[in-house]
Amino acid sequence: MKLSEEAQAALDAARAQSATTRRPTVAALEERLYLPVPCLDHGFVRVVDYMGDDAAIVQAARVSYGRGTKKVSTDRGLIRYLMRHRHTTPFEMCELKLHVKLPIFVARQWIRHRTANVNEYSARYSVLDTEFYVPRPEDLAVQATHNRQGRGEVLDADEAAAVLALLRRDAEQAFDTYQALMDEHQLARELARIGLPLSAYTQWYWKIDLHNLLHFLSLRMDTHAQYEIRVYAEAIGDIVADWVPLAWEAFVDYRLGGLFLSAQGVAVVQRLLAGERVTREDSGLSAREWRELMARLRPDSAGEGSAG
Amino acid sequence: MKLSEEAQAALDAARAQSATTRRPTVAALEERLYLPVPCLDHGFVRVVDYMGDDAAIVQAARVSYGRGTKKVSTDRGLIRYLMRHRHTTPFEMCELKLHVKLPIFVARQWIRHRTANVNEYSARYSVLDTEFYVPRPEDLAVQATHNRQGRGEVLDADEAAAVLALLRRDAEQAFDTYQALMDEHQLARELARIGLPLSAYTQWYWKIDLHNLLHFLSLRMDTHAQYEIRVYAEAIGDIVADWVPLAWEAFVDYRLGGLFLSAQGVAVVQRLLAGERVTREDSGLSAREWRELMARLRPDSAGEGSAG
Amino acid sequence: MKLSEEAQAALDAARAQSATTRRPTVAALEERLYLPVPCLDHGFVRVVDYMGDDAAIVQAARVSYGRGTKKVSTDRGLIRYLMRHRHTTPFEMCELKLHVKLPIFVARQWIRHRTANVNEYSARYSVLDTEFYVPRPEDLAVQATHNRQGRGEVLDADEAAAVLALLRRDAEQAFDTYQALMDEHQLARELARIGLPLSAYTQWYWKIDLHNLLHFLSLRMDTHAQYEIRVYAEAIGDIVADWVPLAWEAFVDYRLGGLFLSAQGVAVVQRLLAGERVTREDSGLSAREWRELMARLRPDSAGEGSAG
Amino acid sequence: MKLSEEAQAALDAARAQSATTRRPTVAALEERLYLPVPCLDHGFVRVVDYMGDDAAIVQAARVSYGRGTKKVSTDRGLIRYLMRHRHTTPFEMCELKLHVKLPIFVARQWIRHRTANVNEYSARYSVLDTEFYVPRPEDLAVQATHNRQGRGEVLDADEAAAVLALLRRDAEQAFDTYQALMDEHQLARELARIGLPLSAYTQWYWKIDLHNLLHFLSLRMDTHAQYEIRVYAEAIGDIVADWVPLAWEAFVDYRLGGLFLSAQGVAVVQRLLAGERVTREDSGLSAREWRELMARLRPDSAGEGSAG
Repeated sequence: MKLSEEAQAALDAARAQSATTRRPTVAALEERLYLPVPCLDHGFVRVVDYMGDDAAIVQAARVSYGRGTKKVSTDRGLIRYLMRHRHTTPFEMCELKLHVKLPIFVARQWIRHRTANVNEYSARYSVLDTEFYVPRPEDLAVQATHNRQGRGEVLDADEAAAVLALLRRDAEQAFDTYQALMDEHQLARELARIGLPLSAYTQWYWKIDLHNLLHFLSLRMDTHAQYEIRVYAEAIGDIVADWVPLAWEAFVDYRLGGLFLSAQGVAVVQRLLAGERVTREDSGLSAREWRELMARLRPDSAGEGSAG
Repeated sequence: MKLSEEAQAALDAARAQSATTRRPTVAALEERLYLPVPCLDHGFVRVVDYMGDDAAIVQAARVSYGRGTKKVSTDRGLIRYLMRHRHTTPFEMCELKLHVKLPIFVARQWIRHRTANVNEYSARYSVLDTEFYVPRPEDLAVQATHNRQGRGEVLDADEAAAVLALLRRDAEQAFDTYQALMDEHQLARELARIGLPLSAYTQWYWKIDLHNLLHFLSLRMDTHAQYEIRVYAEAIGDIVADWVPLAWEAFVDYRLGGLFLSAQGVAVVQRLLAGERVTREDSGLSAREWRELMARLRPDSAGEGSAG
Repeated sequence: MKLSEEAQAALDAARAQSATTRRPTVAALEERLYLPVPCLDHGFVRVVDYMGDDAAIVQAARVSYGRGTKKVSTDRGLIRYLMRHRHTTPFEMCELKLHVKLPIFVARQWIRHRTANVNEYSARYSVLDTEFYVPRPEDLAVQATHNRQGRGEVLDADEAAAVLALLRRDAEQAFDTYQALMDEHQLARELARIGLPLSAYTQWYWKIDLHNLLHFLSLRMDTHAQYEIRVYAEAIGDIVADWVPLAWEAFVDYRLGGLFLSAQGVAVVQRLLAGERVTREDSGLSAREWRELMARLRPDSAGEGSAG
Repeated sequence: MKLSEEAQAALDAARAQSATTRRPTVAALEERLYLPVPCLDHGFVRVVDYMGDDAAIVQAARVSYGRGTKKVSTDRGLIRYLMRHRHTTPFEMCELKLHVKLPIFVARQWIRHRTANVNEYSARYSVLDTEFYVPRPEDLAVQATHNRQGRGEVLDADEAAAVLALLRRDAEQAFDTYQALMDEHQLARELARIGLPLSAYTQWYWKIDLHNLLHFLSLRMDTHAQYEIRVYAEAIGDIVADWVPLAWEAFVDYRLGGLFLSAQGVAVVQRLLAGERVTREDSGLSAREWRELMARLRPDSAGEGSAG
């Protein structure tokens, strides 16, 4: 990722400004403010503004006149209680605003999360930078066989080189055409851009409350999410951990690191704890569910057809 | 409106804190921060936090690396352009968080606006204050005759006194019962509160972006809105005018102070400007539409059955 | 619950109509259409319209040209897969429209679910029926001691009678005042209603997609929900089971009947399955979390301080 | 637009089915059900399901037990009243479900409307058809000079041919690469598709309530919208006119065909109607606002610098 001189200067100027405020501030996030975190080859995420902190969650939960906090240990306990019992509205009282540069195919997955505010760079109004995403060789993988929407083995070096050459050739040609359509044929920008690839980079301002952000992260940090959006989700996760450390800890314990047992899964665990032998066949679980459950609950003996 | 000593102390402590921030700040709003603006007899609105300013609208519209602003006159022009053309997403990049104390019947109208974050004081969890709304005599009016959901003439003094005595008697009795149910019968709070009147005060934290806030204000500052919610909308309007003066000016010019002409209304104005005489009967407008249109366009001759 | 003659006649007339349609229909729901299911003493839920069926979920998931279904077993498998992996968008393709009569304090909990369409009976425009909720004696309970927002033991008969007498007296008086304010003092309806109790019944049309409806049910059928809203949630659950039986079965297995293990809970189960002895103290769980986890996983030995 | 044999057969089979229902049906829409309306070169819109009709708006507005309608003229009056006074909730009680095939750059504009349910064809899970949008020569235009996001003059035939050749060449090559990446290199589909152009067609199921649909149409049928999405909006407009003719008529009169006067615009009209001479300079309007206002109100003398 490389910023233009103009962009860098604007960013430096924004960082140089400061003022006094009565609002809650978070020192760790102030430190990060405006600085882009590189994502993929040309993308980034950077914090443009934030509202609230861990204490603001407590304050809203208590509908307080003041800051609403007591001891840190009490606040931590309340935040964990709220997260555990899915009392989501106090988490909505914190807000984060990001500036993101991302490939269009990532933007199309991202935008499915509707509970956010978005203002995207307009390719009807302005000309897009000549920047497109090219995966690293180690991120090129064959179609997964057991999972219709995932990746399997990594390509070998020759295959990878061939694939990257094709992707680069087409993208460069499409961007050349884009310029030619506008410069030589004066074609309207809104038409000239229709031949650009889905790997082209776009930019947007994206603003979301903490509850919906955590929901976004729980889906997009998941191993089922496409690698390219996961890179962004993980970068945002690091930001959130700095911003609201107590809420983040509760999120990791009660969402990210947890496990949902289905009704059948509960029954399997009950039988196992009662000392019964349980087989996949009499578990009521599908082969895949059985495999995934055992992998989590008996990490040392996963994949066996029975347990107990 | 009178705060408890504890509430006042918490509020004073919050106001006494300050810190340095790189984020945009608005001096006029910092001055107001945390201070309750009284509404009705026991209610208030107070700003708990805010994100962004006029420049943040420009910044998002330009998807800028820095603050995104140029000259004030250029920024003003862009904000007016965005408001006029209903480019709403940049206005969503500012956010306001309020603490509101309000009668339950007002809260029920307010909550219909779904695009906001709300955390309400829980009467299952806590005991409500003994506070209920009693209108001022001058706000007591008879049912409107020409408008099924409005107020007509103000009641005379004797009628008003009788009405207020009834409202007060019932509310006081309901609050006495509420206390007795909890204190003498240990009834669960979630049941004890079901006899409280709709005039009882509740409280909530309410957070909303500027675009949706302006939409809320355009409906709730309107003369068709019930007086009691209008009081709150006007108090919030004053806050917004201090917070984002350029956006507020554009809102007044392009929403609040404007007039929507229907297709038939456009035709009437076209004919009038062409020197034609137009009567209500050949205007295609209903009697009420005609009356309202003439009242706005020909304030001096409103109510006549023809124009031109 | 008793309908007015006029209401009953309107409902019978609606049921008597029928037409031919190319749209998917669900026989079991057609049978229920328009019939109120009584809830509490004067309330009801009734289906006014529906869109889609189990097959419509499959159809959307496949973005099909036709009905999109294959064998029932294949469809069932896909629906369970979607539910398990939280692929929620296909469930949003079914929609249910209900007419609900409910006490205002229940309506205030209900309306917190923002992703729905609501049109409520207007007490500014029309006069409310003289109907208010009075709990059955067996539903009157003292404040829970271990749970700040729940109910504990049921009141004894004398206490219950005293409580109900107070609730009835106040509500009757408030409705008498309401009538007097309108009839004798011609007070505007929007003001006359402010003294009515939260137990007064209101009505609304409520329309929601299946995904958001299931989310509503998962929260409002939960034992932490107030009894009075649970009655409605359970009535709606029965309707959904008739409407989309495969989706309902998947919801019961993967949401309602399941159990979320926190990161610490997963570790406890892993240790137990590995044959380790685990105590509450070294589990990383709070006392309450430990108690609840053991109650689910070892129903026969719950409450003990250690397991293994 | 041409459907595959399989798609056509599925569609025919769906149309051949019918059943009896107690729900409201709309004969004109039943006739259209499932039939694709061609849009652009390979796209379409087709109705998959609908809920409600004009009467359902009235029914919800009245919170009725039955169908809620009275005479057609009364219903029409109420619907117009609701539209005029922006009482939007009754319009949310009708719902439309569409299957749409559209170029990705159109999909990206469309998805900005967040209040809808969407299920898109997954290019991670399935292979996209080799179909991309190529404009007709008469739709190719140069960049507008007075409007940064629009089109100006149409290209001459030679220019158009050159532009189309470039767009076609690049798109064909990108689709060839897409196939080769999957077939020869076994690259995962989620990666193979990143080189496809924004003109490639995608498909989705899209479901929305009538109020939000009309809002979508008011923005996307507007002359400021890009031509390609306008084609879809107009096709949907025709469908809505068949589905809910009274609501459509009210929408045309009170939204589409109307005109919003700003506060300054109201003052100009007042002065003109009072016989005053008004110039652009003393109007308080910008040059562009003046031009647009005069074009609407004095269609015969637009563009002059003064009026009166």
